Amino acid sequence: MLLSGGLDSTTTLYIAREEGFRICAMSFRYGQQHTQELESAAVIARDAGIEDHVTISLDTRMFEGSALTGSEIVPENRSPGEMADRIPPTYVPARNTVFLAMALAYAEVIGARDIFIGVNALDYSGYPDCRPEFIAAFQRLAELATREAVEGTPVRIHAPLLNMTKAEIIRRGLELGVDYSLTHSCYNPDRNGRACGRCDACALRLRGFHENGIQDPAIYQSEMNNEL
Amino acid sequence: MLLSGGLDSTTTLYIAREEGFRICAMSFRYGQQHTQELESAAVIARDAGIEDHVTISLDTRMFEGSALTGSEIVPENRSPGEMADRIPPTYVPARNTVFLAMALAYAEVIGARDIFIGVNALDYSGYPDCRPEFIAAFQRLAELATREAVEGTPVRIHAPLLNMTKAEIIRRGLELGVDYSLTHSCYNPDRNGRACGRCDACALRLRGFHENGIQDPAIYQSEMNNEL
Repeated sequence: MLLSGGLDSTTTLYIAREEGFRICAMSFRYGQQHTQELESAAVIARDAGIEDHVTISLDTRMFEGSALTGSEIVPENRSPGEMADRIPPTYVPARNTVFLAMALAYAEVIGARDIFIGVNALDYSGYPDCRPEFIAAFQRLAELATREAVEGTPVRIHAPLLNMTKAEIIRRGLELGVDYSLTHSCYNPDRNGRACGRCDACALRLRGFHENGIQDPAIYQSEMNNEL
Repeated sequence: MLLSGGLDSTTTLYIAREEGFRICAMSFRYGQQHTQELESAAVIARDAGIEDHVTISLDTRMFEGSALTGSEIVPENRSPGEMADRIPPTYVPARNTVFLAMALAYAEVIGARDIFIGVNALDYSGYPDCRPEFIAAFQRLAELATREAVEGTPVRIHAPLLNMTKAEIIRRGLELGVDYSLTHSCYNPDRNGRACGRCDACALRLRGFHENGIQDPAIYQSEMNNEL
């Protein structure tokens, strides 16, 4: 499974574990400024008892031109409606295509039959590679791409959060015992790793906790960001 | 375009150039034992006047278990009919999916609208990710995966060799001025870079030249391999 260290992928990890899968987690260093998420991924994997966790470094030239891989991220303060309408500067070129392709190769190497990814397309930032039609197209590709597929056992792509709201994702994760204080969502943390409370990722996350009537256990730069 | 340094991708480069494209070439270091092909790719790009040539290093853990990335390659001496019937040990897990995914990301970064790949499915080694249906599925994925695609300008995947025999590919390349002495196809070269003449890649290549009544200008370990 793809594990970024964020709220969605961590919840997905707990869902896969609940479904009885033995998990190998993959994380990627792709030039993201918020490398804090990679530390979170390592802590989360350890906390969940995942023994196999690989972190893959990718050539950062592949992903230039995104606000996430640039030197400065401008929080946008967009409403969820606005997010779904326009692809934001934090879009990273073909990121999920590359991540799923790498997962497909590694799945064949280790003999895995299933790939889990924590994309969702309701409370999301409008990225094209988080939509159901993208996941379906990758499933179709996976059925043609590998030796395992040709021999009758194609990998199955699981995206259990695809049609869930952020509030539903958080509720499900809490039921499964996710410790959301370990997860990192902010695109623009300060030097101490504290979340900005203003970027799209923070905004979606805070709203999800708010709708559940729960305080987000993540640490924010200003406690004002996290008032119920 | 994806440039391995082999016969097919080099011919594809010359076809793309003939069609008027300004070319950026991508090569990959993925743990292949025959790294000779990367040197060939650099020479070919220079020889063809390609200014933009990037070589991307991939985490080799993604591609383990192939004869191409292992320590020993056993030439198979398969006939072309046998090659199409069974996926050989030189199959590398999801290789073209990963290469095309990386090319898709980089195309968006540099503003390219077209990706060329030299796959062909007639005189080939039976790899699943060289077939027309695989290329079509990746095209469909590309139309959904990126910001450019959503905004109306999806990348187009070109596979001009897809339905050509090896002999036809060589004939076309010679018309376009390809210097095949620069290309490297062998999976199992000796320390001096001389081709084995026995692996699938050599067998297909030698037959293609033979059908054109031409001697392959590549250097073989034994000249017996390259008799007309």
